[in-house]
Amino acid sequence: MALISVAVIQMDAQDNIDDNRNRAVAMVDEAASRGARLVVLPEVFVHLDALDKMKAAAETIPGPTSTLLQEVARRNKIYLVGGSFFEKNTEEDKVYNTNLFLGPDGSILSVYRKIHLFEIDAPGEVVFDEAQVIESGKEVVIADSPFGVIGFTICYDVRFPELYRALADRQADIITVPAAFAMKTGKDHWEPLLRARAIENQVFILASSQVGTKPNGFTCYGRSMIIDPWGTVLAQAQDTETIITAQLDMDYMAHVRRIMPALKNRRL
Amino acid sequence: MALISVAVIQMDAQDNIDDNRNRAVAMVDEAASRGARLVVLPEVFVHLDALDKMKAAAETIPGPTSTLLQEVARRNKIYLVGGSFFEKNTEEDKVYNTNLFLGPDGSILSVYRKIHLFEIDAPGEVVFDEAQVIESGKEVVIADSPFGVIGFTICYDVRFPELYRALADRQADIITVPAAFAMKTGKDHWEPLLRARAIENQVFILASSQVGTKPNGFTCYGRSMIIDPWGTVLAQAQDTETIITAQLDMDYMAHVRRIMPALKNRRL
Repeated sequence: MALISVAVIQMDAQDNIDDNRNRAVAMVDEAASRGARLVVLPEVFVHLDALDKMKAAAETIPGPTSTLLQEVARRNKIYLVGGSFFEKNTEEDKVYNTNLFLGPDGSILSVYRKIHLFEIDAPGEVVFDEAQVIESGKEVVIADSPFGVIGFTICYDVRFPELYRALADRQADIITVPAAFAMKTGKDHWEPLLRARAIENQVFILASSQVGTKPNGFTCYGRSMIIDPWGTVLAQAQDTETIITAQLDMDYMAHVRRIMPALKNRRL
Repeated sequence: MALISVAVIQMDAQDNIDDNRNRAVAMVDEAASRGARLVVLPEVFVHLDALDKMKAAAETIPGPTSTLLQEVARRNKIYLVGGSFFEKNTEEDKVYNTNLFLGPDGSILSVYRKIHLFEIDAPGEVVFDEAQVIESGKEVVIADSPFGVIGFTICYDVRFPELYRALADRQADIITVPAAFAMKTGKDHWEPLLRARAIENQVFILASSQVGTKPNGFTCYGRSMIIDPWGTVLAQAQDTETIITAQLDMDYMAHVRRIMPALKNRRL
């Protein structure tokens, strides 16, 4: 059996950037101490506030958060999916919602910029239009690892099966979903969408969410999940800052793909 | 409010074709008498047996089942999604798993031939390879109706989000899923896949399944469902031959698409 110990971190990030960074580092250290070799942080774990304030605090790469992620990956000798933070891209003069993937030597192995930007207009419940303040990424991103090919997505991306197909076409074995899913949508959409992505692409899904109510009044759903390629939820977070863990059995993934060759049965 | 009364029929078809046809007609009549204007029958409701026997009993169009479906639609003045039956296509010398859509005047409004053929090889549990006996359809099919655009799929198709996207691209409002889903896969995949298709495409899903254990030893999962464009299960069948009904609120669909314009936010 080829078992991989993974951890998914659920955080209640607020507007105190230093505090968020410190807790994130402590939780990654804790996850690594429990044996995790692949750890996933949530979306915008560094700073969750009104979108304009998050944009004002956007960071370059290299910058404080990218350097911190490199250090914590290297110190723990783990692969780290660094959630996301607002990236000030000085070359393009644009701001992105950006995910870094770090190796156990602290190197940056890939950079994924969120493609689908969250838009909802339910006055009195939740109103959000990410495209008003940041840019959409253009590139589908995967990275090789000793555990298989990892595919990267962020939050609202989970509504777009074509992105997950593009990752499956690139042989993804594990797809990560750092998120800050809204309560209104999360309670009805989070689990069925995540499970469907796992089932239809026969991949492991590691979904690390934010939880709690934020300074901008936005409440996150939480319920971070680790899901296997049959769609079984292996681990699910309670409604607090917490770490969930599981052993991913890559032989089981091969078994699922063998008994039901759905990826080979595609016709369109 | 633009409300549409719909009914989804769950059947336990066996190897007695006359008996299956009679029960199907009685259930469509009953659904219509309860006010349904759109009724959906399950996959292969005419005959469920070993695949070679089903192939041997394949029917032409026109033929006894197509004529019966036309008659029952006309008599009840309803739109009828005629589940499916094995169709002997004499022009092409091929057999398809074919779905007819009938209008209230008894006319055949569309013909959909199942695109994705079911394949599973779990010895001791369930073994099935539909492509060994019949051909795969090639065409994405929709039809206009007074209730909106209806998109057609059958069973295993539900694993392929690209087909549902193709239907959404053709402005589908309601997607029908006649099925004979296996117990092994249904218990884990049926609901999350159906709900995901509703959520990601913001459409109504009418999923009519077979239930019970068939002469070939194949056990169907049942749990036929009517799901709204937010992914809420409006009605779910118990584990028997039964009819479920709901009122589809097309204004609510417009509301869902307005508050979260996910179909417009596609990027790939």
